[in-house]
Amino acid sequence: MFYHVKELQYRSKPECPDPVYAKKLQEILGGQFGEISVAMQYLFQGWNTRGDGKYRDLLMDTGAEELAHIEMLATMIARLLDGAPDVELDEAAQNPVVAAILGGSNPQHSIVSGLGAMPSDSVGNRWTADYIIASGNLLADFRANLNAESQGRLQAVRLYEQTDDRGVKDMLSWLIARDTMHQNQWYAAICELEAKENIVVPSTFPRELEKQEVAYTLFNYSLGNQSAEGRWAHGPSMDGLGTFNYVEDPLPYGKKPKLNPAPPYIHDTPL
Amino acid sequence: MFYHVKELQYRSKPECPDPVYAKKLQEILGGQFGEISVAMQYLFQGWNTRGDGKYRDLLMDTGAEELAHIEMLATMIARLLDGAPDVELDEAAQNPVVAAILGGSNPQHSIVSGLGAMPSDSVGNRWTADYIIASGNLLADFRANLNAESQGRLQAVRLYEQTDDRGVKDMLSWLIARDTMHQNQWYAAICELEAKENIVVPSTFPRELEKQEVAYTLFNYSLGNQSAEGRWAHGPSMDGLGTFNYVEDPLPYGKKPKLNPAPPYIHDTPL
Amino acid sequence: MFYHVKELQYRSKPECPDPVYAKKLQEILGGQFGEISVAMQYLFQGWNTRGDGKYRDLLMDTGAEELAHIEMLATMIARLLDGAPDVELDEAAQNPVVAAILGGSNPQHSIVSGLGAMPSDSVGNRWTADYIIASGNLLADFRANLNAESQGRLQAVRLYEQTDDRGVKDMLSWLIARDTMHQNQWYAAICELEAKENIVVPSTFPRELEKQEVAYTLFNYSLGNQSAEGRWAHGPSMDGLGTFNYVEDPLPYGKKPKLNPAPPYIHDTPL
Amino acid sequence: MFYHVKELQYRSKPECPDPVYAKKLQEILGGQFGEISVAMQYLFQGWNTRGDGKYRDLLMDTGAEELAHIEMLATMIARLLDGAPDVELDEAAQNPVVAAILGGSNPQHSIVSGLGAMPSDSVGNRWTADYIIASGNLLADFRANLNAESQGRLQAVRLYEQTDDRGVKDMLSWLIARDTMHQNQWYAAICELEAKENIVVPSTFPRELEKQEVAYTLFNYSLGNQSAEGRWAHGPSMDGLGTFNYVEDPLPYGKKPKLNPAPPYIHDTPL
Amino acid sequence: MFYHVKELQYRSKPECPDPVYAKKLQEILGGQFGEISVAMQYLFQGWNTRGDGKYRDLLMDTGAEELAHIEMLATMIARLLDGAPDVELDEAAQNPVVAAILGGSNPQHSIVSGLGAMPSDSVGNRWTADYIIASGNLLADFRANLNAESQGRLQAVRLYEQTDDRGVKDMLSWLIARDTMHQNQWYAAICELEAKENIVVPSTFPRELEKQEVAYTLFNYSLGNQSAEGRWAHGPSMDGLGTFNYVEDPLPYGKKPKLNPAPPYIHDTPL
Amino acid sequence: MFYHVKELQYRSKPECPDPVYAKKLQEILGGQFGEISVAMQYLFQGWNTRGDGKYRDLLMDTGAEELAHIEMLATMIARLLDGAPDVELDEAAQNPVVAAILGGSNPQHSIVSGLGAMPSDSVGNRWTADYIIASGNLLADFRANLNAESQGRLQAVRLYEQTDDRGVKDMLSWLIARDTMHQNQWYAAICELEAKENIVVPSTFPRELEKQEVAYTLFNYSLGNQSAEGRWAHGPSMDGLGTFNYVEDPLPYGKKPKLNPAPPYIHDTPL
Ligand SMILES: [Ca+2]
Ligand SMILES: [Ca+2]
Ligand SMILES: [Ca+2]
Ligand SMILES: [Ca+2]
Ligand SMILES: [Ca+2]
Ligand SMILES: [Ca+2]
Repeated sequence: MFYHVKELQYRSKPECPDPVYAKKLQEILGGQFGEISVAMQYLFQGWNTRGDGKYRDLLMDTGAEELAHIEMLATMIARLLDGAPDVELDEAAQNPVVAAILGGSNPQHSIVSGLGAMPSDSVGNRWTADYIIASGNLLADFRANLNAESQGRLQAVRLYEQTDDRGVKDMLSWLIARDTMHQNQWYAAICELEAKENIVVPSTFPRELEKQEVAYTLFNYSLGNQSAEGRWAHGPSMDGLGTFNYVEDPLPYGKKPKLNPAPPYIHDTPL
Repeated sequence: MFYHVKELQYRSKPECPDPVYAKKLQEILGGQFGEISVAMQYLFQGWNTRGDGKYRDLLMDTGAEELAHIEMLATMIARLLDGAPDVELDEAAQNPVVAAILGGSNPQHSIVSGLGAMPSDSVGNRWTADYIIASGNLLADFRANLNAESQGRLQAVRLYEQTDDRGVKDMLSWLIARDTMHQNQWYAAICELEAKENIVVPSTFPRELEKQEVAYTLFNYSLGNQSAEGRWAHGPSMDGLGTFNYVEDPLPYGKKPKLNPAPPYIHDTPL
Repeated sequence: MFYHVKELQYRSKPECPDPVYAKKLQEILGGQFGEISVAMQYLFQGWNTRGDGKYRDLLMDTGAEELAHIEMLATMIARLLDGAPDVELDEAAQNPVVAAILGGSNPQHSIVSGLGAMPSDSVGNRWTADYIIASGNLLADFRANLNAESQGRLQAVRLYEQTDDRGVKDMLSWLIARDTMHQNQWYAAICELEAKENIVVPSTFPRELEKQEVAYTLFNYSLGNQSAEGRWAHGPSMDGLGTFNYVEDPLPYGKKPKLNPAPPYIHDTPL
Repeated sequence: MFYHVKELQYRSKPECPDPVYAKKLQEILGGQFGEISVAMQYLFQGWNTRGDGKYRDLLMDTGAEELAHIEMLATMIARLLDGAPDVELDEAAQNPVVAAILGGSNPQHSIVSGLGAMPSDSVGNRWTADYIIASGNLLADFRANLNAESQGRLQAVRLYEQTDDRGVKDMLSWLIARDTMHQNQWYAAICELEAKENIVVPSTFPRELEKQEVAYTLFNYSLGNQSAEGRWAHGPSMDGLGTFNYVEDPLPYGKKPKLNPAPPYIHDTPL
Repeated sequence: MFYHVKELQYRSKPECPDPVYAKKLQEILGGQFGEISVAMQYLFQGWNTRGDGKYRDLLMDTGAEELAHIEMLATMIARLLDGAPDVELDEAAQNPVVAAILGGSNPQHSIVSGLGAMPSDSVGNRWTADYIIASGNLLADFRANLNAESQGRLQAVRLYEQTDDRGVKDMLSWLIARDTMHQNQWYAAICELEAKENIVVPSTFPRELEKQEVAYTLFNYSLGNQSAEGRWAHGPSMDGLGTFNYVEDPLPYGKKPKLNPAPPYIHDTPL
Repeated sequence: MFYHVKELQYRSKPECPDPVYAKKLQEILGGQFGEISVAMQYLFQGWNTRGDGKYRDLLMDTGAEELAHIEMLATMIARLLDGAPDVELDEAAQNPVVAAILGGSNPQHSIVSGLGAMPSDSVGNRWTADYIIASGNLLADFRANLNAESQGRLQAVRLYEQTDDRGVKDMLSWLIARDTMHQNQWYAAICELEAKENIVVPSTFPRELEKQEVAYTLFNYSLGNQSAEGRWAHGPSMDGLGTFNYVEDPLPYGKKPKLNPAPPYIHDTPL
């Protein structure tokens, strides 16, 4: 169950309105690695955790925090849209800034949401649960989380570079710091699980059931062997259970498939 | 540029048709972590790599391999659908297997694809590029790849448990082994980059620009402090640049937001 | 900002596992009018409210409650999936219940989410923000909310009819009662706003700017005049500003459109 | 069955081409509350109506009219795109209007549709049936319709404010007036059904089966009690069957959930 | 503008309810090549036609007919769902038909649409305008139409094979015949345009601007030269302007691409 | 199985960066008829082909080539984004080109992909497998392919008109030429199959089972008889099996449908 307090986790107020930046900032609210994604991902992982309370609690702690980040960004976007000018094409002739606003702002911010944030990314794609993952396997999912925080911090940093507004930069400096923590925390959780299991997910599948002769082979399917220079091509494998090997000219192991004809009720082309 | 050979990377032939399993197997062909996803993800990452040839080559090697895996699964699904019975509801009264097939198979396998594989998951959602990521930042993207191979191997293993067909299990033992390699290889590449940079992505953002006082703090937003027991709550941070701390009763840092009224041309409720 | 407590708003435990019902119950978790939809809709409306604190508070109160409902349903679905049998096609010959489970359960519940709830509806469509609305105009949005609670309660009632499990029915009796309250509350808020404004949204557009001669006309475009029997065809209009009238044989007011040819750089068929 | 006449329901001709406005106008053609949505929503509701002819006829009358509105908007958009300039980036240096057009127009209007309207919204999202609802319950659905006409008229009014073109404003004055009628008609139909049933949908579920003790309670989950000031917090409920009450410090009714571990064939993290 | 008559274009009544078949039949109502797709495709093509009245009229004639087909299928599906049993898992033990219905019917038909048709395909994917095309170029679009009628008739025929209900078969015999006509009519229109232009769309692009040396070459990228046996590999090209040639061992014409490093504000991995 | 070589099929290098054009060019990479669509469509058709090797080989030859086209476009887009300026709103006042770039470029190119190509169209919609078709019936599918190459060449030609960059035009001249070949090749394959079967797909459905009396009739549902002037209205049908006829005033063949009331457990409005 959730309680809401009206105070923001951190302040979220721009120096000036800027509808073009409001459009861009939607990316980390409603994009693939925006705050909606991490909130929903951590909450669903938490609700689906079967077992150990420590990980479930960490997931719920962080999921609840991400809800606060959605709120901060929604507030910031509404303020960036404050007094957004109501401009028309012929005004652009007088004023290149008007031209930029006409082109660079999101028309749905005035037509659809009434100068409010939308659950969408920076080009207007609505948020979709296609973005999230909760598999029940904690090591797999913590890797998904480490990736999400890496992509998310990267996007926040790129957005930080694209504005001079001190209010926006102040808020982003908070979100970027929290992503630093979240990368650290998922990293710590991953280390703990990898130490107990093995690095290969899932760790419980009997290795003798997999085709072991190709479990540590790099097949060179893109001709040119620069990839042979990497750690992944030689020496003991990272999981400690094998040895990497490199196949420069890989051949097929299978034969040409020959499918049976379709039965008549399928009405394919008669051949 | 690509060349295709008609031989399969590995054989892909079931002992018996099984349209119910064909439906399930679609998950690792066209689902969120199916072979289409990894193929497209690695190829786009490779094409967008600006710089070092070793990583680009590794991405293209693996992307090309994943195309071969789409092919193996498409072939397997077509064969599992071979001679799929053309059954009707009243036949179910005589035969529970017919009932199971009626319910458990994907109607689009007969109506739409003519007993062929579809670019869809196990419940029929069409594959979408929402599933993939290519950010240009290699450490971020290799984490995405490690996650994809973890989720993918997990799903393949779960599917392995759901059949007794030796032909299907044989093919899955190949794919599972390749996922073992791919987890190992992305892990190796990640270690290499983390050693050169730092674990926090992106490593190039000046730390003094982030809100450092909360960069290593775990806020306990889900009441109950089991999460304080983890490595992430105390001691040096994983990136070596700070110390974890735990805030049991976190308070807001911001104030209640108060938005300005909308201008008249937005026609909100007058208040 | 949000705090989470681990206790559920209300208990959520089935008498018995039932994977077929777990699939169905996804509808009111992740479907068009499921709990994710109302939670996100009310929260976005609240964050975007510019002005009066009473409505904003009501939206945030209710949005936070809906998060608790997502949690209850996620918990119920995980428990309905507890010990879901790991069945194969040939077992169906022995047991029609196995056949029903094979056909009637969601394969992603075992392959993707590891016996956890998914952010999807009862046929597997992932939740999308296409489902929600937050326009900034409170009367419009409260109507959206009244609709959402009407559709949502209807679906919960239909699901109530489809199970005998007393644990499931107990939880649904809670959700149905809350939908009763929510219908009542949005109804009350609508009455308040309609009394201050007018029933036509937005109330601030000058009526003389609309084509007043057709503002209260029912055009009979589906031949047969049963629709003339309704209150909407005769008498004073509901907004008190006009009189309904019925046009039995409506004619076009416009002319045949004739579009100009496309310029050559468009390369249409030359005509 | 449908007959088409080539004359438009109302004229639809701009004074001047304006590709930037053409992009915006797509919102009320192919957006969430555009004309495709209401046409499909009313037609599907009509086709699914089981019973009383008066409501079915009203739905089909209005659904057929909305098809004519799609046609008017498609025509208007094609004309706004007439002779759309074929501009390049370097021309923007000379002319801010060119800059605005480059940025503010939809590239698919020239590349994909050949200067024609598209079944998309103002940012290019394709129309999806996710937008519509037809539940079979008429009171629920008429509420959906009243909402759709409220959102739709609001968007049309906002678009009216964003142009000076008298031809466009003339057409919008028609559509806005029709939305006035449609809000009035669904309002009338709702009143009729609420008088016969009750305001709570569905009216046929026995009230004793819902958790009556919380059927009229407002839980204050967003701390701060401004919401206690509303009609929804005190006094008789709107459905006449209860009394509103306000719980300032709501506590959980349920316990912490504890899920069983997953079975081995799911291969979760071993704990 | 459109008029609706309540009579169906053709009768649409099954002998018996069959909810499993109702689910399947959704494919040709709301699937990729269902009636919604062709209706919307032809209408949008008609509205966007700039020029010759004959083709515009044909498009509008056929678009209006397809609306009648949506109506017939919606009616049929509602009737196939009539009296759909309200079954539970434990009843399946007694009755394999119950098991088949539990598994093979669409749960949204009872929970969401109240035993009505939905704007979805046979696995529940909502209809999307991604399915349709209207480019402004009539020859291109008539080819899209010929394809749509080919795929649509194929699916209708496959569905015809999957039922014994004489009422359903009767209705399908109508739709299949209409698809025969529609294939014939688009074929005729294509022949007319190809005779006036050329078979290559668009016909107006100066051939000297394309890379003529590869305009009639078949590159053998899938090793093995069975494809050399076809008409497309040798002899005069179908457009009469060149000669087909076959390249058995195709080599790249381009060089390895080398991308510039990203600028610092992009924060890629430093290399 | 696939091998990749690092050389491009054809060179792909612009004279100058142009982020606005990069956004547009996404259409033929990741749009409905972009290179991802044709690659996936041909490969899936090839994998699903049951029978004749000649067609399967042709499909795989062409599918593999389209992968090379994705690669060329991804490379071109990355280069068009090279050194894309990092501009802000206030700079637009000084420079209309900045204004155009702010408005006309895709924000995800800097925030999400790090100046790389995305699997999206020119307005940012992610690629979806909704775009492709593989039915198993070769004649139907070759028609889909001819359409795809027609739409694709049309879009490439329109893009050719929208740039003066000689590098871009050079690459497009290659792609346009290849589309010329692909239209020719599918045309040839279609002719071959039509000569063996009949033009109506599928050719194997017994004609006496369709409603023959309406198999060659044009119903004039859009009033006005310009459509009577076409070849499709009179004379022998294109399939040689009937005679076209024109019905100027088409009447319904069916009756008004009357649906049964819903059962009580559906909880529709009581009527
Ligand atoms: Ca290589
Ligand atoms: Ca905690
Ligand atoms: Ca009527
Ligand atoms: Ca409150
Ligand atoms: Ca070949
Ligand atoms: Ca006509």
